[in-house]
Amino acid sequence: MRYCNRCGADVSFIVPAGDSLPRFVCNSCGHIHYENPRLVVGCVATWEERILICRRAIEPQLGFWTLPAGFMENGETTTEAATRETMEEAGAKIIVDAPFAMVSIAHINQVHLFYRGRLASPDYAAGEESLEVALVAANEIPWNELAFRSVRHCLERFLEDRASGRFQFHETALTPLASTP
Amino acid sequence: MRYCNRCGADVSFIVPAGDSLPRFVCNSCGHIHYENPRLVVGCVATWEERILICRRAIEPQLGFWTLPAGFMENGETTTEAATRETMEEAGAKIIVDAPFAMVSIAHINQVHLFYRGRLASPDYAAGEESLEVALVAANEIPWNELAFRSVRHCLERFLEDRASGRFQFHETALTPLASTP
Ligand SMILES: [Zn+2]
Ligand SMILES: [Zn+2]
Repeated sequence: MRYCNRCGADVSFIVPAGDSLPRFVCNSCGHIHYENPRLVVGCVATWEERILICRRAIEPQLGFWTLPAGFMENGETTTEAATRETMEEAGAKIIVDAPFAMVSIAHINQVHLFYRGRLASPDYAAGEESLEVALVAANEIPWNELAFRSVRHCLERFLEDRASGRFQFHETALTPLASTP
Repeated sequence: MRYCNRCGADVSFIVPAGDSLPRFVCNSCGHIHYENPRLVVGCVATWEERILICRRAIEPQLGFWTLPAGFMENGETTTEAATRETMEEAGAKIIVDAPFAMVSIAHINQVHLFYRGRLASPDYAAGEESLEVALVAANEIPWNELAFRSVRHCLERFLEDRASGRFQFHETALTPLASTP
């Protein structure tokens, strides 16, 4: 950020009076531009025993498989975001059951929230951001071609809970992967 | 928003190509300024049977009682946000137990997330944003002087779950209150 979005003047990255963290503060009008983590909301949606997954048509992780999910928009609830993303990316109408997994990823300023849900019918179709969409059995999940660690976490917990007969709400945090020297 | 924060030129509020919602788009460099809901994270923290509450020293709802909570910051997890806010507003160190309640408030573009936690010791002190802090028994909660509906929802569910002996994760959405004509 280089310019104030209210008056167009330059900004400085400084700690405002009474604050404890640096912010982009306008050198002219004084407006403080707060930046906050974003919520990514998605769904583990099933039809009978099968799970709905999408192969990404966009970066990052183009070509890899994911659960339908995306940035929550202003003006919607978390449930509405999960429903909308599943329709946009997988062409599938879902009945949302319950929040299922929440993953904080502090180093990219995101919180991922996945619901459990069921397809209203076995109809789906790749949206603009998907190359293909599939309903897969547990033993067909492409574990080595998953796009994101939060998706892996969610699918692992989902299969465990389903096997145990009791779904819980899961919370975790992911830290950066160690880079190989 | 009137000016691009990358180049300082004017922005227009239009639907970008391939998008479905209007965004602030720079008329010069084309940068799209996405705006997303913000997470407010807090805690129902207890010492023995008592609950930690704060009386607000700032607007909105100055003078009303709330649970320690505030906007999640970039670079932290949701658990860290709950811990930090409880320290900042109530001067109390907590042990976080589990996520407890999530409240979507679409008309103000917020999601409120409350944890359950316990004070590490019965020590607390009003921070800069609090007039006073108290540890109250269930029958001492100032129901008619609570600052926010999400806080009321959280406290109600907490007392119900505690009475039943089983804590669950609760999710709900709040819509605008009807205005009296
Ligand atoms: Zn300015
Ligand atoms: Zn620009």
